Amino acid sequence: MAWYNVAGTSSDTVISTRVRLARNIQTYPFASRLDANAANEIIEKVSVPLEASGFRKVNFSDISPIMATSYVERHYVSPEFATKDSPHALFLMEQPGIAVMVCEEDHLRIQSILPGLALEEAYKHALNTEKRLDEDFDFSYSEQFGYLTHCPTNLGTGMRASVMMFLPALTRGGYMNSLATQLSKLGLTVRGLFGEGSGSAGCMYQISNQITLGISEEETLHRLGDAVRQISESEQKARKSITGEALERLTDKILRSEGILKYAYMISSSEFIQLFADVRFGITLGIVTDITYEQLGTLLCETMPATLTLSSENTPKGESARDKLRAQKIQKLLSPAEKNA
Amino acid sequence: MAWYNVAGTSSDTVISTRVRLARNIQTYPFASRLDANAANEIIEKVSVPLEASGFRKVNFSDISPIMATSYVERHYVSPEFATKDSPHALFLMEQPGIAVMVCEEDHLRIQSILPGLALEEAYKHALNTEKRLDEDFDFSYSEQFGYLTHCPTNLGTGMRASVMMFLPALTRGGYMNSLATQLSKLGLTVRGLFGEGSGSAGCMYQISNQITLGISEEETLHRLGDAVRQISESEQKARKSITGEALERLTDKILRSEGILKYAYMISSSEFIQLFADVRFGITLGIVTDITYEQLGTLLCETMPATLTLSSENTPKGESARDKLRAQKIQKLLSPAEKNA
Repeated sequence: MAWYNVAGTSSDTVISTRVRLARNIQTYPFASRLDANAANEIIEKVSVPLEASGFRKVNFSDISPIMATSYVERHYVSPEFATKDSPHALFLMEQPGIAVMVCEEDHLRIQSILPGLALEEAYKHALNTEKRLDEDFDFSYSEQFGYLTHCPTNLGTGMRASVMMFLPALTRGGYMNSLATQLSKLGLTVRGLFGEGSGSAGCMYQISNQITLGISEEETLHRLGDAVRQISESEQKARKSITGEALERLTDKILRSEGILKYAYMISSSEFIQLFADVRFGITLGIVTDITYEQLGTLLCETMPATLTLSSENTPKGESARDKLRAQKIQKLLSPAEKNA
Repeated sequence: MAWYNVAGTSSDTVISTRVRLARNIQTYPFASRLDANAANEIIEKVSVPLEASGFRKVNFSDISPIMATSYVERHYVSPEFATKDSPHALFLMEQPGIAVMVCEEDHLRIQSILPGLALEEAYKHALNTEKRLDEDFDFSYSEQFGYLTHCPTNLGTGMRASVMMFLPALTRGGYMNSLATQLSKLGLTVRGLFGEGSGSAGCMYQISNQITLGISEEETLHRLGDAVRQISESEQKARKSITGEALERLTDKILRSEGILKYAYMISSSEFIQLFADVRFGITLGIVTDITYEQLGTLLCETMPATLTLSSENTPKGESARDKLRAQKIQKLLSPAEKNA
């Protein structure tokens, strides 16, 4: 079980919640001026309390690029972290979903990820880990600004909270641009699941706070939570407004996507995202009844290129072999026997 | 059971066989000069031996246009016959599939239709019915020309034999035009299932004799049978030549069509024909394993617009309602419970 294959609360509009805290250790220079020796020293030092707390160490200097990418696909590390040259390590506690990136942009990036809308809980998980580390290290902190971070955009709370939302009806209705404008006025930002510029692929969006300075953690979570609940309501309203012929056409599109997902011989990663979104929308609308949110969540992670390749006994050669493997994997995971596995 | 839901021999390339004999009764003028009284008289007279032989009379003046179209869709009558103004009637024996159109272009059109490649048998069925009628009527016949028909293209044997073939690989390979040229040299002709100009929809083609004069019935059947067997071989060869990546792409296309057929909410008549062809090809290639030729044959007839409408308790209003009904019908007929029904 991981964050991605458990259905959380509000799972018809919210997929998951993430809270990340950036911290730096006073006695070391910031990452851009940190040499390899010092980086290794930090990794070694933090591993003591983290491993004692149940974290598993993943040394990114030792793993294959494909394994590194697979951690990106499961949202445990950033793409930048995965491809870094200098020493860096991940400490992971898959249950309940806490990841500590050591020597990313900041010395420490403590991240909690949970299914559904769970801002308070995710914050609590990250904060507990931060408190444990705070016992052993002095974090760079200024009375005036708050936590000091490598990039000024994180200065203050050092906190980035984000909620991954599933907004097919608002996407369909063309409301996402005006929503982004409104959110930016609240100090919040919206971007596609697959990073900036990934647009509306899969109708999944990360809503997160943009401001970390001059605002408390609690107020940030409060604002974000309020916004998410309002967006959820708008999405629900937009879904209800699809009726008559439009609903019939949508039903047809959704059921065709279900059929293709279950029958196609090859499915590319980008096509999968579209099919995923259609079928997830179908579950929400009661059109798709034999696939669960949990199954789809598992699919979303397990069919990403690197994770998919790692799960195969024989490394698939070339894109079409991978697309074939993806279709097989999907069909296996959607077969009735796997439903409650 | 009817011709269309039984798998015949060579059913991987041949769907059905039809033989039709045109006859006119000496004592009446040809159809274009026949008045309503005389037409009714013919209908009444032929009904005696035909009904005694087990034929069911369908009086086309009494049935609804949609019912008339449904007989066209099941290939028991011609489109011209269905929409004729003057008196005309059909005599039908669904088992083994013999239809006598009375007062079509000729006074009598005796037609036998059988699943698979069955030229001799179909000819025998038609001929037996013709012989029964020959006992009561004198057919217009000239020693020099043979049977006299309304249109000179039928003069001689008055026989049109045709085989409906399923040629997806030859269609795919672009061989159909050169095949048509070759066949015309043998006095044979090829046209799409849905009449001239319907092209390659569904990859189904009728191969039939063009010549009725100066050739015997036996020779015609012999030539046609030979041609069909040769085309079958070419088709098989073309199927075997699809390998490697091309076969994988084809497999993907076929399985997607199966998925859409089983899941779509609305399916138009023309889309159905394409899906039908893909899935039928899939059965042939061993890619589709849970649908039978018989099920597809039933689908092909039962989902035609008029037949579909007649099978519904509530007449569907508009095209999209019919497309919805078609999808439901398809999914019902493809459900495992119906497989051996």
